[in-house]
Amino acid sequence: MGSATIFFWLQLPNVSKSYRTALTITGIVTLIDTYHHIRIFSFWSEAFVVASKDGGDSAVQLTGAPFNDGYRYVDWLLTVPLLLIELILVMKLPQQETVSLSWKLGLASALMVALGYPGEIQEDLSVRWFWWCLSMLPFCYVVFTLAVGLAESTSKQPSLAAASLVSAARYLTVLSWCTYPFVYMVKSVGLAGPAATMYEQVGYSIADVMAKAVFSVLIWAIASEKSAVEESGKLLPNWVLGCSLLVKRLY
Amino acid sequence: MGSATIFFWLQLPNVSKSYRTALTITGIVTLIDTYHHIRIFSFWSEAFVVASKDGGDSAVQLTGAPFNDGYRYVDWLLTVPLLLIELILVMKLPQQETVSLSWKLGLASALMVALGYPGEIQEDLSVRWFWWCLSMLPFCYVVFTLAVGLAESTSKQPSLAAASLVSAARYLTVLSWCTYPFVYMVKSVGLAGPAATMYEQVGYSIADVMAKAVFSVLIWAIASEKSAVEESGKLLPNWVLGCSLLVKRLY
Repeated sequence: MGSATIFFWLQLPNVSKSYRTALTITGIVTLIDTYHHIRIFSFWSEAFVVASKDGGDSAVQLTGAPFNDGYRYVDWLLTVPLLLIELILVMKLPQQETVSLSWKLGLASALMVALGYPGEIQEDLSVRWFWWCLSMLPFCYVVFTLAVGLAESTSKQPSLAAASLVSAARYLTVLSWCTYPFVYMVKSVGLAGPAATMYEQVGYSIADVMAKAVFSVLIWAIASEKSAVEESGKLLPNWVLGCSLLVKRLY
Repeated sequence: MGSATIFFWLQLPNVSKSYRTALTITGIVTLIDTYHHIRIFSFWSEAFVVASKDGGDSAVQLTGAPFNDGYRYVDWLLTVPLLLIELILVMKLPQQETVSLSWKLGLASALMVALGYPGEIQEDLSVRWFWWCLSMLPFCYVVFTLAVGLAESTSKQPSLAAASLVSAARYLTVLSWCTYPFVYMVKSVGLAGPAATMYEQVGYSIADVMAKAVFSVLIWAIASEKSAVEESGKLLPNWVLGCSLLVKRLY
């Protein structure tokens, strides 16, 4: 995640001005994620210990220190809206659509994370499912908007390569996002203890790498591709305009 | 806050030269705030512990180490005048007005923070209220200047978008600032102990995020919008100049 941040920021001069905000935000998302994973790592180290009983098989044991999952939710609260905003920015929609989509998807995704947390810290299974269901409402809205609502805008991308990269980014978001509700269920189906927490953390971490680092590489590829297309396009009209002006004046 | 700093500084080449000082200061404000929140965080970690009593519900308990609120006031002493100066700079008022407003609002806001601190560290409720009242005098002056005094300058902004963003920044300042006196009152109405300190810290932290990170995003948006307006204005004369030159040569 940290390396991804450095990659995106070093790439800033290589994309045209209109995609630099998207690429800056992309690096910020992976930076925030780096910070929170370091925090989660130290909580993890303190809360669990792998020990072998009487020289036999190793087992995960509790140290007694609480494992705090709050950092992951604080991370999501910040990064998930930013991830959606960077996708919208890189699509370069009309300004009004950019602003309204950023607000709608940003707020819906923040609400989704906020509604997930009360269930995550619950032992009671019915309460966990209650918050899971509530959280799925904004989740479905965001996923539906990405899969269906943005289909038309995707077809308007300046090149076939750009359009297919935008599609890939949209579907990667939809697919990687769908892993989260299933990981959340690990504890909702009655699994408990350090092993359940371990599966949950491994699941969330893999999903985070897909939804953030891999997704962000696609965002960078879109920005690069569109910059190249626009730069080659920009040279022509100026040159053509100059010639046509000259021809007009002369004849 | 740290991510916001990086975002603002990476955006420096994207705004025109006259807004770069404002954007540099914006990043410095969030950087100073990052530093102080790390300090506050470590004091917090040392002063409080979340422990469960006999395996039951978790509760906040004192460790005995003192929680030092001085860092937040040192932070405010530096950042609050800078925040007001960045707003004045981004409005691009006539130079004399910029200098005189920066001095007036800068000094008044520093005085406001300095007068608040003696009350903050007091247990005695009447002494707390005394300093609260004194601190409210420069507070009201600053808020009044922002809400009323800057209304005319706002209407002179170069585009409707810029004017509404400046208004939003002014009113966000007024609104977020108004939360501080109320949070200060948490302890002034007789609440005490770790729970009161917790509510106070949560309140101040939320207000700081609004008054600094969110406010600064508005400052950046104003700088971007005004840069775009000014640049498109600059391009036109060049084009007109080129045409008139061509016409001159031909006839």
